[in-house]
Amino acid sequence: MPATLKLPALDPETVAEKRGSGYPEPFRSRMGDRAKRRLGDACGLTKFGVNLVTLGPGGQSALRHWHTLEDEFVYVLSGEVVLVTNAGEQVLTAGMCAGYPAGAKDGHHFINRSKAPVRYLEIGDRAPGDNAFYPDDDLLLCEDENGAFSAHKDGRRY
Amino acid sequence: MPATLKLPALDPETVAEKRGSGYPEPFRSRMGDRAKRRLGDACGLTKFGVNLVTLGPGGQSALRHWHTLEDEFVYVLSGEVVLVTNAGEQVLTAGMCAGYPAGAKDGHHFINRSKAPVRYLEIGDRAPGDNAFYPDDDLLLCEDENGAFSAHKDGRRY
Repeated sequence: MPATLKLPALDPETVAEKRGSGYPEPFRSRMGDRAKRRLGDACGLTKFGVNLVTLGPGGQSALRHWHTLEDEFVYVLSGEVVLVTNAGEQVLTAGMCAGYPAGAKDGHHFINRSKAPVRYLEIGDRAPGDNAFYPDDDLLLCEDENGAFSAHKDGRRY
Repeated sequence: MPATLKLPALDPETVAEKRGSGYPEPFRSRMGDRAKRRLGDACGLTKFGVNLVTLGPGGQSALRHWHTLEDEFVYVLSGEVVLVTNAGEQVLTAGMCAGYPAGAKDGHHFINRSKAPVRYLEIGDRAPGDNAFYPDDDLLLCEDENGAFSAHKDGRRY
C-alpha cells in the first residue's frame, strides 16, 4: 500500500459515506441500501460531481429519470447491476459504462438485483437551470421564489 | 458475460483506441505508449469528456500542466502510476483518485514508472475559454483569429 495520499490525490476510503435521498416518501425508502462518497467535492471540484456509489442488494441509484441540461455518466467498478431504460433492461458488470446525454428523453436508473454489492462511479455536470423528469413515478421537481420543492404530477406539494 | 450492450450502455472494449497527441515535438514523443478510448463521446456526451486511458511502462498522461477553467478528475482502475505535482511525487494504485480544480496553479501529470500497464479514467469539463500552462516545459498554448497554436514561451511558434 502507498503511504497516505495528500491532495490533489485521495484514497476514497477516507471520504465519509453519505446515505439518504432528497426524494419525498414513498420514493426515498425505495433507494434501499445506497451509500455515496463525494470524491469530486472532496478534491475541491465545482464544475462536475464524481460520486463513488455502493448499492447493496435491492438498492437503486435513483428513480428512473432523465435530465434536461445535465450530462451523466456511470462506470461499474465491481459487482453487477441492472440498467433500466425506455428500451428495457440490460445487465452491466465491472468495466462496463453508460452515458446519458442532457435532454435525451430516456429515463434511466440502476437496480441491484444481485446478491452482492455493486460499486460504480457516477459523474454529472452542474448545469444551472437543470431539471429532471420521472416517467414512472408521481413526482415533479418544481421551483418557486423560495427554492426547489417536490410535487405530485397534478401540482400538489409533497 | 452479458450480451452485447446497447446505448446508453457501452462496453469500453468496443470503442476505438486513439493514440497520438496534439503537442509539438519534442513533447509528443514523450507521451510514450498512451492509448485513449473516448467513452463520453461514444455515449453522445458533450458537457464533459470521460476517457479510459491505458499507459504502458514509461508512458505519460500529459505534460505537467494546470487548467485555468477546466476541472479534471482521474480514477485509477488497475496498475500503479506516479502523480507528479508541485509538492513532489505520490504513487497511486487501483481505487485511488485525484482531482484538479480549475485555476489551482499546481501542475500535475501521471508517469508510469512501473513495468506493467496502468489503466485509469480521466474526466474533464469543456469550459469555453479554458487555457493550460506547463511549468516544466517551453510550451504555451496561444490563440489568434485562425485558432489555437503552440508556441515557445518567448512567443515563437513551433
